[in-house]
Amino acid sequence: MRWHRPAGNPRNNSTLNSMEFHVEKKDSRTDARAGVVVTERGRIETPVFMPVGTQGTVKTLSPRELVEIGAQVILANTYHLYLRPGHELVRELGGLHSFMSWPGPILTDSGGFQVFSLSDLRVVRKEGVVFRSHLDGSEHFISPELAIEIQRALDSDMVMVLDQCVGYPVDHPLARQSVENTLEWAGRCKSAWESSDPPGARALFGIVQGSTYEDLRKRCTQELVDIGFDGYAIGGLSVGEPKSATFEMTALSTGLLPEGRPRYLMGVGFPRDIIRAVSLGVDMFDCVMPTRNARNGTLFTSRGKLVVKNVEFAKDLRPIDEDCDCYTCRNFSRAYLRHLFQAGELLAPRLATLHSLRFFLRMMADMRRSILHGQFSEWSAEFLARYDAGPQ
Amino acid sequence: MRWHRPAGNPRNNSTLNSMEFHVEKKDSRTDARAGVVVTERGRIETPVFMPVGTQGTVKTLSPRELVEIGAQVILANTYHLYLRPGHELVRELGGLHSFMSWPGPILTDSGGFQVFSLSDLRVVRKEGVVFRSHLDGSEHFISPELAIEIQRALDSDMVMVLDQCVGYPVDHPLARQSVENTLEWAGRCKSAWESSDPPGARALFGIVQGSTYEDLRKRCTQELVDIGFDGYAIGGLSVGEPKSATFEMTALSTGLLPEGRPRYLMGVGFPRDIIRAVSLGVDMFDCVMPTRNARNGTLFTSRGKLVVKNVEFAKDLRPIDEDCDCYTCRNFSRAYLRHLFQAGELLAPRLATLHSLRFFLRMMADMRRSILHGQFSEWSAEFLARYDAGPQ
Repeated sequence: MRWHRPAGNPRNNSTLNSMEFHVEKKDSRTDARAGVVVTERGRIETPVFMPVGTQGTVKTLSPRELVEIGAQVILANTYHLYLRPGHELVRELGGLHSFMSWPGPILTDSGGFQVFSLSDLRVVRKEGVVFRSHLDGSEHFISPELAIEIQRALDSDMVMVLDQCVGYPVDHPLARQSVENTLEWAGRCKSAWESSDPPGARALFGIVQGSTYEDLRKRCTQELVDIGFDGYAIGGLSVGEPKSATFEMTALSTGLLPEGRPRYLMGVGFPRDIIRAVSLGVDMFDCVMPTRNARNGTLFTSRGKLVVKNVEFAKDLRPIDEDCDCYTCRNFSRAYLRHLFQAGELLAPRLATLHSLRFFLRMMADMRRSILHGQFSEWSAEFLARYDAGPQ
Repeated sequence: MRWHRPAGNPRNNSTLNSMEFHVEKKDSRTDARAGVVVTERGRIETPVFMPVGTQGTVKTLSPRELVEIGAQVILANTYHLYLRPGHELVRELGGLHSFMSWPGPILTDSGGFQVFSLSDLRVVRKEGVVFRSHLDGSEHFISPELAIEIQRALDSDMVMVLDQCVGYPVDHPLARQSVENTLEWAGRCKSAWESSDPPGARALFGIVQGSTYEDLRKRCTQELVDIGFDGYAIGGLSVGEPKSATFEMTALSTGLLPEGRPRYLMGVGFPRDIIRAVSLGVDMFDCVMPTRNARNGTLFTSRGKLVVKNVEFAKDLRPIDEDCDCYTCRNFSRAYLRHLFQAGELLAPRLATLHSLRFFLRMMADMRRSILHGQFSEWSAEFLARYDAGPQ
């Protein structure tokens, strides 16, 4: 018996021909917008934060806990699942949703970012990229066509094109070359996408690259729009550049992207950065920070970060966040969480992850509500004032 | 909001003067019995298996999962909690139940076994035992009186006397000395118990020692009964002696113990051993094996052990145990569990622990039902035949 259903009024509509996106309300003072993505596997209310389930599991949590905290869509990593357990195996076992028992929508990245951040060797050719596995050193080649094939095998609902990521800083010629590869690969991904024939409606996203160069970002955005995708991701940011550049590049893209397609800022980020990006018209986010920090004992709260291992919490009977409705905050004290971390107990990263993800998801839901009610700026100011006040 | 309640029709009876135990049905062909322990914090249906929550958490699981799988009582370790976070801290924070958010009954051991199995240095004196912490090498002294004080501070429902454990084999003079210390300490524990005045009804258990010597086991059992306890534990077994000796010593004690008190065989064990001990009149069990093995990828099933990491399960879409009703078996395949273990994901030990504990708890519930229906021998034979058949 698979008892669980994703939150957010899932819609099982086998007649859906393609992913839909509707903007429900636009903020009058910023470019923030509240919308709905409709997929065959459920509705996603935007702006949305997608918990990261790199290896086919959001670390420490069960799918029913994800439903409980309000997750509507999760992200999985093509690079990791391709290497282990292998996309062919996942396909043979019925696809990723069935494999991990998550019936809601899944977005998969293309592996582009991981090839550049995790693998030992990488050689970028026009045809694709050669890399060595971070697991066993074996050599692999990913082409745009293979990136699509892998994601089709996983049966992802939202598929990313293969892109070429570069670090920061990078000189203009190299950044331009990466944009040209990214654009060529995006075109090939779209062709591969259209010639494959999956059941139901899935969506293909293009990815904007171009480092911090306005001309390259502009060109990349426009040419992707010319190719035409179901959604658009803004990639290659949050890699060390100044925050001002992150948001300038984001605004440049959102200003050129079609209103009627969802926009996804990859790998962002802190609550403040998410709020800023929403104000620039971004709809979708992912980041490992809430989950990774939680496993190390740093939790996000309505009053900023709380390092629960600190000795000051040894006798603190208050919950992690007095404003939070999660299972952790309803049942356990800071003192108990600290004890679990001190004792190296596995329940510690579990309870911490549950809380921090719930904090992010509730923040997104509150933000969305504020947009619908025409109160986004007021909500943001209030949220950030409390957040900056620091732990009680 | 603390939403959860332990399973098994908890009874909150603040007028209960002492723990109650009723034998509901005795088997006609063996000494097996089905009974009920009534504590202020809930009813416990026996025979019962108590999940081990050494450091104030049953490793990897949340209290609500323990309720879901049918745990009625859990065990916590005095030695560990005394050293970290410290019993005074737990007392100050409202006791162990509130600290760990488990409202049902808790049994605590006295620390005797851990002092002998975990600590570096130990000097047994007539007054008590000196040992070094396995955490930081600090020196500690535990007396019978302190063992009671610690368990009172934790607010345990079922408290164990301090006993002296010995290894196997051990010569008769040393075994006799350990019995004499155990008996003297048991008397001092009872005095300390009676002079302390906790709220409500808690229970004190004596512990039978005597290695594999019949005369010592007999003497220890009889003298403990003369002192008089609310329940009796059989300790110092499953430490390397032949199985035949384990059960001879167990039968010797259960034959001498009063019918109207619960009997607890410490640290046992495998399904087959539990069934055998139940047939000898034992009511209560604990063992780290289901949880520890699960964390390493070895799971208990109705058809014996299953090593889920094995490559043979890489494409196996069946649940761990097709006869099991746990969350893990209802939602995940062997192939997925194997992937989680291969990938080092924390969800792996969680899902495995949930299953193996549910297997033990369901086995106990089925066994109890068979006793109530006069079918214990038939049930045992059938259970063991299937168990020995091996995984499908």
